Amino acid sequence: MATKLAVNFGDVTEAYRRISNFIHKTPIFTNNKINELTGRNIYFKAENLQKTGSFKARGAINSILKLKVENSSVAGVVTHSSGNHGQATAWASKSTGFSCSIVVPKYSPAVKMAAIKEYGAELIQCGPLPTDRMAACEKVAREKNYEIIPPFDHNDVIAGQGTIAVEFLEQVPDLDAILVPISGGGMLSGIAIAAKHIKPGIKVFAVEPEGKILEKCLTSGERLWPNPPQYLDTIADGIRLQQVGHLTWPILLELVEKEVFTVNNEEIKAAMKFVFQRLKLVVEAASGAGVAAVFSDRFKTLDSSIKNIGVILCGGNVDIDHLPWY
Amino acid sequence: MATKLAVNFGDVTEAYRRISNFIHKTPIFTNNKINELTGRNIYFKAENLQKTGSFKARGAINSILKLKVENSSVAGVVTHSSGNHGQATAWASKSTGFSCSIVVPKYSPAVKMAAIKEYGAELIQCGPLPTDRMAACEKVAREKNYEIIPPFDHNDVIAGQGTIAVEFLEQVPDLDAILVPISGGGMLSGIAIAAKHIKPGIKVFAVEPEGKILEKCLTSGERLWPNPPQYLDTIADGIRLQQVGHLTWPILLELVEKEVFTVNNEEIKAAMKFVFQRLKLVVEAASGAGVAAVFSDRFKTLDSSIKNIGVILCGGNVDIDHLPWY
Repeated sequence: MATKLAVNFGDVTEAYRRISNFIHKTPIFTNNKINELTGRNIYFKAENLQKTGSFKARGAINSILKLKVENSSVAGVVTHSSGNHGQATAWASKSTGFSCSIVVPKYSPAVKMAAIKEYGAELIQCGPLPTDRMAACEKVAREKNYEIIPPFDHNDVIAGQGTIAVEFLEQVPDLDAILVPISGGGMLSGIAIAAKHIKPGIKVFAVEPEGKILEKCLTSGERLWPNPPQYLDTIADGIRLQQVGHLTWPILLELVEKEVFTVNNEEIKAAMKFVFQRLKLVVEAASGAGVAAVFSDRFKTLDSSIKNIGVILCGGNVDIDHLPWY
Repeated sequence: MATKLAVNFGDVTEAYRRISNFIHKTPIFTNNKINELTGRNIYFKAENLQKTGSFKARGAINSILKLKVENSSVAGVVTHSSGNHGQATAWASKSTGFSCSIVVPKYSPAVKMAAIKEYGAELIQCGPLPTDRMAACEKVAREKNYEIIPPFDHNDVIAGQGTIAVEFLEQVPDLDAILVPISGGGMLSGIAIAAKHIKPGIKVFAVEPEGKILEKCLTSGERLWPNPPQYLDTIADGIRLQQVGHLTWPILLELVEKEVFTVNNEEIKAAMKFVFQRLKLVVEAASGAGVAAVFSDRFKTLDSSIKNIGVILCGGNVDIDHLPWY
């Protein structure tokens, strides 16, 4: 069945070969306390320590390196992003000698906008709706002959994010399940493609903020989200989008568990604090969501055969002057 | 000359063999931004990711493992500590099956006291002066037939902390200098012994909070500090002690550069923030002190032959509900 999907395992291994000199092989963290509390072995993949502070570096640089080979007439790249993908695209452009414009909503965290500027990209502000971003992005692409690098709904981005699973299963071959925070689904679909190919019995779970209703969509096989696309009311600004992508959706539907972990702001905050205090890592709220799932009631009900569980600490780009527990 | 000192390189390699199954080989972090800003290559040794959240785990477990072999009649161990050494001793005792009491001043950060209790040690509170700690500690030792594991002025503790340098120079053989935050001097003297033996040309520098007057002492060769021992007014609670130890002093005098980096609270705070934001690591203020030295005016005046510089991020046990910039 997997051959029908837009991205396959070959795309992921090809991406890994392409990007591995540019990215960090991020380390795995474990913690006795959380293993004791959960009665399982939890492995944290520290993508907060990735270049640009999030996993987004993988997909962005994969897309741009491929573009460079396949379409040398393009003058540069442009993207719209809540921050992490923008930062990653700016960095990837600089690393590969491309021009770059980044469209960001006006209310983006200052720390993320500053980082984008630091990578030498042009910053273009737009309105607050998902549709505002698209429009601004397309305008830049047209006017400057730039290629759009979407944050998740793009085969090369999905393949790039999938390299997380290649690394993770190399580092911890015994993983029985992986928990992945989801927004548009680029990381989750990429990880599912790679992990299920390497280890067909592995379970790949989504972790969502309240209000995303992903479990209902996956169970019914239908996109039940209201249009136009909405943002969720969550402190996890990296995973605010309610709808998943149109390229990622069929992948999720085929490969990801229907059972979804839903976490609220208080749980995310507590999990973030746990990571700061115990792992001594700075993580953003989207990473906290993944950890919150491990502390959830639903997690306790997982089959006891699921012993070794991976959690993606997807990013660390939090404004440390405005940590959510202050 | 080194043969006159109480601890030699053989003690450090012996310690490394003894403790290496218990501790983490902590990773090295680099950051393009700080290299760009300083024009040198800075390597951070992340001892905040060490067991118990600080380098103190090394000296504590070395002392206890050695004690276990050499004096099996001892009923347990006791120490006095501002927190990190206490936590480390509690952990080391638990890891090796020893009973343990920890004497801590009443105003110690709650996060440190909770951690000590979690390792199963008995917590004994004492008054605020350095001399209060000693007295309480000696009382417990007498009454319970416990051995005292001092925080720094102890050969096995010094040898244990020296293992940091063995690892660091294995990971980054090209280091020209190492910057080490100092309180009693256990870590600095241990590192100096090991680093100067492995690489005699390397420079080992102390980093101190304002008011410690270590440069004046080292230059004159005299202990100019007022008695009884005082605490400095610094946010870096891990390095508050003004005087260095009596065992560590001759080692420092012989092996450490006379030029000392002195940093104030504002500099420490800014450096801590840099580490949180850029390295995505949670560090305590004492670690911030080491990083602040890299941003100092004195650092700019270092000889240009000193290109590759190691900085010890000595601990990560900060109360994240009371970060100093809030």
